[in-house]
Amino acid sequence: MTAVGYMLGTPSIRHYRCHTPFVWCGGGENVTGADNQQERPVASEWVVGFVDGEGCFSVPIFRNDRCALGWQVQPEFAVVQGARSAQVLTDLQQFFGCGRLSINTRRDNHREDMHRYSVRRLEDLTTRVVPFFEVHPLHTAKSVEFSTFCDVLAMMRLGLHRTGAGLAQIAAMAETMNFRKRSRYLESSEAIRQPPHLDG
Amino acid sequence: MTAVGYMLGTPSIRHYRCHTPFVWCGGGENVTGADNQQERPVASEWVVGFVDGEGCFSVPIFRNDRCALGWQVQPEFAVVQGARSAQVLTDLQQFFGCGRLSINTRRDNHREDMHRYSVRRLEDLTTRVVPFFEVHPLHTAKSVEFSTFCDVLAMMRLGLHRTGAGLAQIAAMAETMNFRKRSRYLESSEAIRQPPHLDG
Repeated sequence: MTAVGYMLGTPSIRHYRCHTPFVWCGGGENVTGADNQQERPVASEWVVGFVDGEGCFSVPIFRNDRCALGWQVQPEFAVVQGARSAQVLTDLQQFFGCGRLSINTRRDNHREDMHRYSVRRLEDLTTRVVPFFEVHPLHTAKSVEFSTFCDVLAMMRLGLHRTGAGLAQIAAMAETMNFRKRSRYLESSEAIRQPPHLDG
Repeated sequence: MTAVGYMLGTPSIRHYRCHTPFVWCGGGENVTGADNQQERPVASEWVVGFVDGEGCFSVPIFRNDRCALGWQVQPEFAVVQGARSAQVLTDLQQFFGCGRLSINTRRDNHREDMHRYSVRRLEDLTTRVVPFFEVHPLHTAKSVEFSTFCDVLAMMRLGLHRTGAGLAQIAAMAETMNFRKRSRYLESSEAIRQPPHLDG
């Protein structure tokens, strides 16, 4: 399915709060060799099942004056767990050989600290996370979000997120994921001046 | 760990609303042979990962005047998904060769119908669900709840849920699972008259 295809609007599987403020608590972006299956602490199919349940592929767009258009597109793969299950996030970090761990101690509606594993670096997403799920497909409707996520990454590799029309299209695609609220970008005057999607 | 060991209080991993009213929508208790690996639509490790994320082992206790003590202990293994991912629940039903599917169309906080796979029949739990997770252990803290769940099943096989002290102990064990609210049984006059746990 093309990126434009997603513009037709495929509702995502569920609302998942991925963007509560987390504090980085350690773990570099390259922990171990992701290609070395023997070092992996968990089975590939376990990872698929767990991500089918708990994983989140999202494309938030932030205000960032250092970016060409004043907006930063930040695709992210993340998994959140309560403190008592934090070990599996370390396992995921080791499995993919990239990504970071953080802790949210605010608790909000939770009764324990929430731990978070996330991968944001574009190279890690395109060379480690995406290839894994292309070979080991997700079983739930989360696969639709993964597909949109891949389309956004492809557009970013072409630099389209640095063009007004491309940014508008990425924002519209991101809007279809995770039952997201309308992004601040789409509500901004910049977005209103842009055509809603690429026509050619 | 013994059942009494759990009385010391092991907090469970997270609150998970398993007991919203669902309408049975089909699917018998024995769909296919669970032991026939070739018929299984999903890999064992995928099931472990998915249940680590989305599964729920619970022990609700209901008022039921037809039970000896007026209370029914109803252990249940359940997985809930939005309508767009309902197929994986059918896969789980086929995988375990037991259990039922239902739909909650109330939506509440959800934007789609919620589908539910559950196994309640004691024989299915003890001969199909429990043996699978004993051979393929859960990776998250949900394994602690599974262990408590197994202890409750063992007590029920001994008929202890039909004794006042046994029922009180099961209620206290169930209380440690899924961040549950205090059960109506434990707030009842029957429970208050019972010792809090077995001492010998």
